[in-house]
Amino acid sequence: MPHGPFRLAEIVARFGGELVGDQDVVVRQVGTLAGAGPGELSFLTHPRYRNELAATRAAAVIVPESERGATVLPRIVCRDPYAYFARVSTLFNPPPPSVPGVHPAAVVSPEAHVAPSASVGPTCVVERGARIGEGVALAAGCVVGAEATIDRDSRLHPHVTIGARCVVGARAVLHAGAVIGADGFGFAPEGGEWIKIPQVGRVVIGSDVEIGANTTIDRGAIDDTVIEDGVKIDNQVQIGHNCRIGAHTAIAGCVGIAGSTRIGRQCLIGGAAMIGGHLEIADRVVITASSGVSKSIPAAGVYSGALPAIDARAWRRTLALLRSLERLVERVRALERRLTNLERPR
Amino acid sequence: MPHGPFRLAEIVARFGGELVGDQDVVVRQVGTLAGAGPGELSFLTHPRYRNELAATRAAAVIVPESERGATVLPRIVCRDPYAYFARVSTLFNPPPPSVPGVHPAAVVSPEAHVAPSASVGPTCVVERGARIGEGVALAAGCVVGAEATIDRDSRLHPHVTIGARCVVGARAVLHAGAVIGADGFGFAPEGGEWIKIPQVGRVVIGSDVEIGANTTIDRGAIDDTVIEDGVKIDNQVQIGHNCRIGAHTAIAGCVGIAGSTRIGRQCLIGGAAMIGGHLEIADRVVITASSGVSKSIPAAGVYSGALPAIDARAWRRTLALLRSLERLVERVRALERRLTNLERPR
Amino acid sequence: MPHGPFRLAEIVARFGGELVGDQDVVVRQVGTLAGAGPGELSFLTHPRYRNELAATRAAAVIVPESERGATVLPRIVCRDPYAYFARVSTLFNPPPPSVPGVHPAAVVSPEAHVAPSASVGPTCVVERGARIGEGVALAAGCVVGAEATIDRDSRLHPHVTIGARCVVGARAVLHAGAVIGADGFGFAPEGGEWIKIPQVGRVVIGSDVEIGANTTIDRGAIDDTVIEDGVKIDNQVQIGHNCRIGAHTAIAGCVGIAGSTRIGRQCLIGGAAMIGGHLEIADRVVITASSGVSKSIPAAGVYSGALPAIDARAWRRTLALLRSLERLVERVRALERRLTNLERPR
Repeated sequence: MPHGPFRLAEIVARFGGELVGDQDVVVRQVGTLAGAGPGELSFLTHPRYRNELAATRAAAVIVPESERGATVLPRIVCRDPYAYFARVSTLFNPPPPSVPGVHPAAVVSPEAHVAPSASVGPTCVVERGARIGEGVALAAGCVVGAEATIDRDSRLHPHVTIGARCVVGARAVLHAGAVIGADGFGFAPEGGEWIKIPQVGRVVIGSDVEIGANTTIDRGAIDDTVIEDGVKIDNQVQIGHNCRIGAHTAIAGCVGIAGSTRIGRQCLIGGAAMIGGHLEIADRVVITASSGVSKSIPAAGVYSGALPAIDARAWRRTLALLRSLERLVERVRALERRLTNLERPR
Repeated sequence: MPHGPFRLAEIVARFGGELVGDQDVVVRQVGTLAGAGPGELSFLTHPRYRNELAATRAAAVIVPESERGATVLPRIVCRDPYAYFARVSTLFNPPPPSVPGVHPAAVVSPEAHVAPSASVGPTCVVERGARIGEGVALAAGCVVGAEATIDRDSRLHPHVTIGARCVVGARAVLHAGAVIGADGFGFAPEGGEWIKIPQVGRVVIGSDVEIGANTTIDRGAIDDTVIEDGVKIDNQVQIGHNCRIGAHTAIAGCVGIAGSTRIGRQCLIGGAAMIGGHLEIADRVVITASSGVSKSIPAAGVYSGALPAIDARAWRRTLALLRSLERLVERVRALERRLTNLERPR
Repeated sequence: MPHGPFRLAEIVARFGGELVGDQDVVVRQVGTLAGAGPGELSFLTHPRYRNELAATRAAAVIVPESERGATVLPRIVCRDPYAYFARVSTLFNPPPPSVPGVHPAAVVSPEAHVAPSASVGPTCVVERGARIGEGVALAAGCVVGAEATIDRDSRLHPHVTIGARCVVGARAVLHAGAVIGADGFGFAPEGGEWIKIPQVGRVVIGSDVEIGANTTIDRGAIDDTVIEDGVKIDNQVQIGHNCRIGAHTAIAGCVGIAGSTRIGRQCLIGGAAMIGGHLEIADRVVITASSGVSKSIPAAGVYSGALPAIDARAWRRTLALLRSLERLVERVRALERRLTNLERPR
């Protein structure tokens, strides 16, 4: 349900930037430089895409100051074309409207509270004591546990599970299959078997958080697991009990974070990174994709540990050399001794 | 609901191969060499299983040409016993039949189109404009979003989510909990926070694709994410927005593929391999299990980068040596200098 | 719904240990040393937490024999404070009671058998021939396939899928989104395409097993996949077809185990470890987090292979050195030759 169309002048009036060229050009959707057609607004973030800019069929483009002269198309010159594009795309592509009210095929406890403007989709289950805030939209098949709270304007995609007593802040987006508030993995060993430790903490999620499809965030063992405001989490991420994720940190897909780890604000955790338990990661730390973190990181910076795949035979040789490194060090030590011997004046 | 039984002669009439021994032997199910009992048909793919062949209680076996004489049991000699076995097993074990029609506990929009021969299970939700093709079977709890399309004879297991406008081709098998068409992970950074970029592309899946349990495939940001014909994807795989997976490529469990990466045709991606974003992987590339790919791979071949676990103490020594490699290189350089000095004629 | 409160004397009467201090102190919940308030019972497992013990506001603590004198608070002295705490916490925090009976919004086949004391939640689907045992609780949205069995007192959280004919033992806990019995990933290659091999085995799960959110365990290809008694599996674990996991083994989050691998009893598999297919892992093997296993492990012990992330520039240098290891070995060999030459008597 795209909105619009809009004249470029209307867009600039709304979002700022400088309009160069025909201000009456009308655009109705966004597009990539390569894929945009007539009536579409595209964007250039980097000079390396100038070739695509030259060939684009877009009606207009968003460009940075440095590329002001890089096209003759109508253009919006601004400081940050990618952020500008995000805003314009949101204007053209608002989330689909949801119909307020409880679908007749939903099951809502009489002891739950659903705000009048909230939408509860078919086959949803809202348990006793749960609170669904104004403007919240639950897509089909969501389960909101007893005494859980979902704050205003949050949007849950199909099959999201919110465990009992958990809290989801305002304007959250939770994608399909996400599980918030399953039990943490807590067992005490005794005599070769395991005794389950009840997981009585909650998951508490701040405002403006996005959580990807099939991501799981466990409830705390005793205290809570906390996801601060503005955190963005991709698909299939696992966050263990009692973690705290600092505000505006972004976590890419397939990341695992073991229990009781605290990650700072504005961190970037690359895809498939694995972070051990009981660690402290400082603010503004970047972990590159596929890296493993087994020690606390006390200072901002970029941290890596991933091995890029190479030709399999070359990799086998490298592995063999790695296995024989100890022997190589001994050989160097022997050489040093022999050489010292030779160098000695006779 | 196994079909059969069949006489060996009937099986050979159907699938080819040469029958050696009693053609009237009747088999009613397949089995492993070790586990098969009377009335079961087993198979041998490799001479290393000859001991198991000798001990098998199977009624008959499928063998390659080279093993024609390896047993006195009735046997079907063929070029590729594993493929032959797959066909026979499919004969004995067809998918369970589904009952055409919409279950009374399903919720189907009056503006959706469900083919008469399709089966929509209990607690399924089919939204407005969705199209469910002939012979499609939706198990319990599936959600098909607005204007999504599922082509003929596809089979969705419980709790599969198909996002709005996504397309699933014919004869697909989607396992429980798979999420097709969640939003890609797209945010523009601005002032330490994130602006969401609407994800307006679709997921478009070809024919004869299989997708594993709890696997997630994100919709494109602007253009589509594409899974070509015959692709087989295992459980808990994550495929980011705007990826393209080439025809007949197989992707094992726990693999992650970051956004905008294109993988060629007939590739094999080993379990837990992690592939970075914006890469191009050629046709017929094999990535071994647990390997990370951070650069494009322009040529067919086998690529590796995984570290096999060893005794933990030995591994700690290897890690320490790895950390001191720079120092080792310096020591070798010093040795080279000293030696050159010594070798100089005095 | 915490139970209690209890006097310390009552707790010691129930679970043993020696009570030091006021036996009439009443506690109503457990807490961490740092977070516990009045009326809460905390615990100390290790001397390194003595500072927290000194500052705690807990009403009483559980301590090991060695810390008997480490506090003046009322205390329970016992051999294993963590296991003791697990028992006390279970006393205070029993699982929420479930209401026997089938919710009107559940869909139960008339050919299924549901025990009178079992609870089947709203939007659950129980297919023909399924058996739901005494005291079993199915939360909202669970799907139990045809002829599957769930034994007494097991607890399934929302959206769990149990495939046809699978077996779940007594007292299991299955967390939200877990998928038991999806098809294994079995295809025979033929002419560049794939032929599906029907997966006709089951998943058979023993007693007292816990399985995490969005974890997937595939059914066997021909024989069964087996999870023995007391196994504990965390979130987002993938277990391939025909694996066998030995009794009381614990598997942390994000682990992948490829098909046909047998893992022994009482193993500990660290988070994100990846274990290849067709391997045999002995009893009491410990695999540390993020390690990859590509060969069988015939003996108990600790095995590692993970690379901890370091400063990204240092890591790039290490990678470059790793790539040039072969050259380094050649340089050492050349040095050895030259030195031998020099050492030769002239």
